[in-house]
Amino acid sequence: MSSSFSTIPFGVNGRNYCPPDAPVAVICLDGSADEYIDEALSRDLMPRLKQMTQEGYRGMARGALPSFTNVNNSSIVTGVPPTRHGISGNFFLDPDSGKSVMMNSADYLRCETILSAAEGSGRRTAVVTAKEKLRDILSAGRKEGIAISAEKADEARHATHGVEQVEGLVGQSTPEIYSADASLFVLQAGCRLIGGAFADFVYLSLTDFIQHKYAPTDSPALQFYHAIDRYLGELLDLGAVVGATADHGMNAKQQADQSPNVVYLESKLDEEFGAGFQVILPITDPYVLHHGALGSFALIHAPDSAPLEAVANWVDRIPGITEVYDRETAARKLELPIDRIGDLAVLSARDVVIGKTPEDHDLSHVASGLRSHGGRYEEMVPFIVSRPLNPEYRLRANADVRNFDIFAFVTNGVQP
Amino acid sequence: MSSSFSTIPFGVNGRNYCPPDAPVAVICLDGSADEYIDEALSRDLMPRLKQMTQEGYRGMARGALPSFTNVNNSSIVTGVPPTRHGISGNFFLDPDSGKSVMMNSADYLRCETILSAAEGSGRRTAVVTAKEKLRDILSAGRKEGIAISAEKADEARHATHGVEQVEGLVGQSTPEIYSADASLFVLQAGCRLIGGAFADFVYLSLTDFIQHKYAPTDSPALQFYHAIDRYLGELLDLGAVVGATADHGMNAKQQADQSPNVVYLESKLDEEFGAGFQVILPITDPYVLHHGALGSFALIHAPDSAPLEAVANWVDRIPGITEVYDRETAARKLELPIDRIGDLAVLSARDVVIGKTPEDHDLSHVASGLRSHGGRYEEMVPFIVSRPLNPEYRLRANADVRNFDIFAFVTNGVQP
Repeated sequence: MSSSFSTIPFGVNGRNYCPPDAPVAVICLDGSADEYIDEALSRDLMPRLKQMTQEGYRGMARGALPSFTNVNNSSIVTGVPPTRHGISGNFFLDPDSGKSVMMNSADYLRCETILSAAEGSGRRTAVVTAKEKLRDILSAGRKEGIAISAEKADEARHATHGVEQVEGLVGQSTPEIYSADASLFVLQAGCRLIGGAFADFVYLSLTDFIQHKYAPTDSPALQFYHAIDRYLGELLDLGAVVGATADHGMNAKQQADQSPNVVYLESKLDEEFGAGFQVILPITDPYVLHHGALGSFALIHAPDSAPLEAVANWVDRIPGITEVYDRETAARKLELPIDRIGDLAVLSARDVVIGKTPEDHDLSHVASGLRSHGGRYEEMVPFIVSRPLNPEYRLRANADVRNFDIFAFVTNGVQP
Repeated sequence: MSSSFSTIPFGVNGRNYCPPDAPVAVICLDGSADEYIDEALSRDLMPRLKQMTQEGYRGMARGALPSFTNVNNSSIVTGVPPTRHGISGNFFLDPDSGKSVMMNSADYLRCETILSAAEGSGRRTAVVTAKEKLRDILSAGRKEGIAISAEKADEARHATHGVEQVEGLVGQSTPEIYSADASLFVLQAGCRLIGGAFADFVYLSLTDFIQHKYAPTDSPALQFYHAIDRYLGELLDLGAVVGATADHGMNAKQQADQSPNVVYLESKLDEEFGAGFQVILPITDPYVLHHGALGSFALIHAPDSAPLEAVANWVDRIPGITEVYDRETAARKLELPIDRIGDLAVLSARDVVIGKTPEDHDLSHVASGLRSHGGRYEEMVPFIVSRPLNPEYRLRANADVRNFDIFAFVTNGVQP
């Protein structure tokens, strides 16, 4: 390894970053409620993460709300909340077209990314995602860097992805997206890109297929974190400063008989207040096998005639609903872009998800147990830095650390 | 050890408990945010807790709100939320007298305790608390059982405490209340009471002096959890089924210069709406050195003339304030007894505490850093059971487990 990496500071979105003279790898451990790490550590399955904790820092950070993938990945790569970057969900009702659409395009991103700014200061950047859906947003604004997904690894081309023949480079074939391998491919790619000096400032974003499907003590979950640990070790051995956090946690959302614990909000609204309500579920993405498009956050678009305050008060009393905000309050309290949310924002309990109508959801894949996220109880996530924090950041850790502070911690926060 | 312990089931507060043929010890690890356990485990300082996790169950549970000591200890020993048991804080404005008073007396408890019911079914019960303030509530309704505090260990008498010469029994002199020893005395007493067959159904409630004063990676905190682990081991070696949870978590509540991050709510209200507001801080107790009576929860008693909705909306916009509820909503959402709260209930952020006026708080003891609790971000706590869960409780663990389910888990939930 060359020991010469650009240490030129750069600023982006009102924050400054001073990269270290070392490779930097930030990992988004998608859906990693802290319990997954606890259980794997207790069984001695994550020796390298244990080392990171002992030598560096481990704490909890507060993610962005709603606790969904696109929202939080966007926050992590920009260093700012959704108010600023504009990504309010995986899916939203576009006020311009009146249609509900995926929010997967970089066109929706309202600010520059840290990766783009790092590239500008001379770092060789790479973004590796499990799901193709995130690739465009996360690689926004860069001119040269690498941007690949595990899901479409075999489609990568120099002109569009900054690299090609990825399967050969990584030493694995393109994985099935509904698998542990989709995430492990991302980590292995990160190791190869840094190890082969293709990149030295890397963002690696996994997928939460395993966490949706398995509880922390289930054997496939433990094996998954054990496998993750091997790649953490490779990154450490390559001399990288490694930061790991998550986009959101994960909780069981099921009844005593293990069937999903769903509040069908659009059905309920139509029954109580008449037709015309549109409930948007921003968890919706092209990968619904994980969760049946059921999460703990919903947006209500009400017909003009609806008595909005009465609707809000009524929804707030539905068992399992924990928070209801009007548009202005939601934007302020949940840090959301006011033009990309509904008339009301609704959060549900630790064990409850929100659906539209029973007809809108295929529960066949989650009939024997649903684990999901999106609400307040998936907001807190692990936050781990591989090197000792410097005095300033030791103090900062005694505050309301956000998951989107992770790039600041691995650049400005570590001892030289 | 005799292997004969009463296994007669008993019911209390609408729940049934089937005690195992083994000693039962439930521990309230006061103020144990999960991070304290994580850090100690990562340094191999809690081998017996690690064993409990591997052989039994470790997860997170949701505590009662406000996340204060009396509220949650009362929930743990009754198995029900504050709505039912009536303890809404350490301190409240008594509507009958119009005076603000400590809520330390069993007279305020509105239901029976699990310990009292266990005694009725033939278990020999003991309650050991660090702070004297909790002894009366937690020992309510029992006729014979032992009830002692570390703080006043030397004052225990057979007639009133069910045991005497406690210092000799425990092998330690009465500890200073502002110390780690105040908690360790409780655990040692628990071991001696079970080991000497004085009791076989025991509740051990520690104090959070260490957690208020030290972050999870600070050496005194690590040493404290290491010492706790030794007693966990003793309890396990005595054959006890051990359950451990916490009353609340703990977060740093300070600004960048380490000074306390306080919203002086009564001052602000008086300034904006005129005099007459009374802000009650239910964290207040006789032991203010810990926290300066500053926590993340407050009750507002407004003058009759106050425009309550406008006040609520205004308070909700104060930076650092996260939730504001009117009396009815607070009772419903936070599960609080409606006659023992204020006109408004207010919660503050992960790094913010609420005060009355600057004159009401002596900050000299927290000038170099404040750690406290009371709000939403100290609601989630560890939940650990020493034995494998049976199939029914493995399923129950996939739900919104509460810290006050711990007695149900250690009685009904473990494999025989």
